[in-house]
Amino acid sequence: MKIHNRHYRSIWRKSEEPGIWQVLDQRRLPFEVAAVDLETVQDFEWAIRDMVVRGAPLIGATAAYGVCAAIREAQDDRDFDGKLAWYVERLRATRPTAVDLFKAVDRVLEGVKSLPDYEKWIAAVRIADALVEESAAQCRAIGETGLPLIREINRKKGGEPVNILTHCNAGWLACIDYGTATAPIYLAHDAGIPVHVWVDETRPRNQGAGLTAFELGQHGVPHTVITDNAGGLLMQKGLVDLAIVGTDRTTREGDVANKIGTYLKALAAFDNEVPFYVAAPSTSIDWEIRDGLAEISIEERSEDEVRFVVGLDGTAIRRVEIMPADSPALNYGFDITPAKLVTGLITERGICAASEDGLLSLYPEMAADAIV
Amino acid sequence: MKIHNRHYRSIWRKSEEPGIWQVLDQRRLPFEVAAVDLETVQDFEWAIRDMVVRGAPLIGATAAYGVCAAIREAQDDRDFDGKLAWYVERLRATRPTAVDLFKAVDRVLEGVKSLPDYEKWIAAVRIADALVEESAAQCRAIGETGLPLIREINRKKGGEPVNILTHCNAGWLACIDYGTATAPIYLAHDAGIPVHVWVDETRPRNQGAGLTAFELGQHGVPHTVITDNAGGLLMQKGLVDLAIVGTDRTTREGDVANKIGTYLKALAAFDNEVPFYVAAPSTSIDWEIRDGLAEISIEERSEDEVRFVVGLDGTAIRRVEIMPADSPALNYGFDITPAKLVTGLITERGICAASEDGLLSLYPEMAADAIV
Repeated sequence: MKIHNRHYRSIWRKSEEPGIWQVLDQRRLPFEVAAVDLETVQDFEWAIRDMVVRGAPLIGATAAYGVCAAIREAQDDRDFDGKLAWYVERLRATRPTAVDLFKAVDRVLEGVKSLPDYEKWIAAVRIADALVEESAAQCRAIGETGLPLIREINRKKGGEPVNILTHCNAGWLACIDYGTATAPIYLAHDAGIPVHVWVDETRPRNQGAGLTAFELGQHGVPHTVITDNAGGLLMQKGLVDLAIVGTDRTTREGDVANKIGTYLKALAAFDNEVPFYVAAPSTSIDWEIRDGLAEISIEERSEDEVRFVVGLDGTAIRRVEIMPADSPALNYGFDITPAKLVTGLITERGICAASEDGLLSLYPEMAADAIV
Repeated sequence: MKIHNRHYRSIWRKSEEPGIWQVLDQRRLPFEVAAVDLETVQDFEWAIRDMVVRGAPLIGATAAYGVCAAIREAQDDRDFDGKLAWYVERLRATRPTAVDLFKAVDRVLEGVKSLPDYEKWIAAVRIADALVEESAAQCRAIGETGLPLIREINRKKGGEPVNILTHCNAGWLACIDYGTATAPIYLAHDAGIPVHVWVDETRPRNQGAGLTAFELGQHGVPHTVITDNAGGLLMQKGLVDLAIVGTDRTTREGDVANKIGTYLKALAAFDNEVPFYVAAPSTSIDWEIRDGLAEISIEERSEDEVRFVVGLDGTAIRRVEIMPADSPALNYGFDITPAKLVTGLITERGICAASEDGLLSLYPEMAADAIV
């Protein structure tokens, strides 16, 4: 997608020859667009741990290139295997609950393990590149699956802009390109279908106000930032035609764990008969669990994210404390939207009902694994 | 209620002899507790317009004392009536949509109009004092009405603390004492019933994180600040026993216009069978309207409230910009919670169903006025 009219992905090679990659420092967005070089294992480790990069697919891609860097650096060591294992452990430890990170690391290691050491570096880069291309293609496929929903609403509205509400950032900055929830929106916009996006600010970390608004604005997609409190009223007033959100984890029966506050928007959508869709890449589906509320444990994050707000003061990025110093705060990271509130899941294979039957209609190969 | 272990109201005489009143500068709360003197008409005008004071009952009380100041100052003028009218117009113009303000101004003027000019000042102070006492008594009555709800939950939980969620600030800082939504909470706490309050931060102006957390903390009531996104999950997890919110306007049929985001919490409460009560002083009931969504126009406020967040940076109060400079924002001030989601209205006359029948059972005198 575009920034300052130039096409970007969220991670890219600095030059034709692999060895240095670049990412945007997302901690400084939307206030400053700054690319940073990632070359050494330490660079990759820092980028993931310090949240220079965030979003499961982008963390996965960064970790994959991090393993490439680890292989190259380990080649200078007498104990290649020992050194590589040590580097990989450090990469794994950056974000201990990130499934995409572990999968990406394993995929690169697995792909090179039977090769002679001197061939591993280039092979690893090829594998990481393939992983990145697949990730982008998966998002694009979700976009193509979701696009007809937007087209149809636009037709029913006689060509008037389609108002779409989204929560948090399930955009290309979290992925490689297109994003998940944003993919149908970008494809509609690029196809000339008028869209307008209501962007939930998404406290406590404001990924909506900061990142989603930034990426939509840079790509030229009309949008308006609203507080997390406002979406219900907008639906009551008929100002939302469609809601599309992302998912961190989707159960076999269609419950959705996503950024805290998603559930409240789903309730309002249901109450006002607004279609509520979840862009769910197959990688987000956890076939092993059924009941989101009972089976997904909710991450509790630092209360400082509630206590402080980060923003721009003139040209300086500062954080200000918004509550009494001696009041405690609590900060759960996500909530569970029960399947009954989800109109449909937008996957790269098509749209389905948020139910086991719905999901199995698209993923029949998972039926054999059914949990009784 | 208490601040630093001293009892406060939100407006008080500086000394026994009337002439100077004091209020807390609420623009600096929770970061600094600063009382400011209000003596001249200009002082009162400034305090209301610049939001040194806020909350309908407190604005009314401040305006009432403002009229007292106007009368005293007009007495020095040859054209007493002309000067007083001019001062009063300035007071009225401070917050043009504040019904309590107009009512308070009219009440003082009406009460003194047949008196000789030299008696007006002291009579006006007596009327304003009476208005303030009634306002405090009304909140206390709401507290006494709501207290058994909390007592009963505490009993059912075998003495465990009662977890109460509230939104925005319907506390004593907005009123004279006790508050509305907070009144049952303060009375329960003072009666030794263990309570814990989940305080919604209440973007965009953060009256929850800033004011409600401050006043609960100062009075010693256990509480935790949460983002506006979090209440749904807490209800899903069974961590909320009761929700109590305030109301800006209540329709004859029990619809409630309150701070934006209230509706989302009501939906979540309904979905999780959490009792959802609205503390509705009779002054908030608009007997002329029935359908909140159709008949109440929603105030649109400055988008800067969404764009900027105010907080403490070291010892300085700063505002930081949290979104891209070229992205627009939209800022509706409140939403409508339909009566169907409201478990009951807590009024100073008792608790009733959120319906015309319910309200008329407590206010039978309004039946004669029924709109057909």
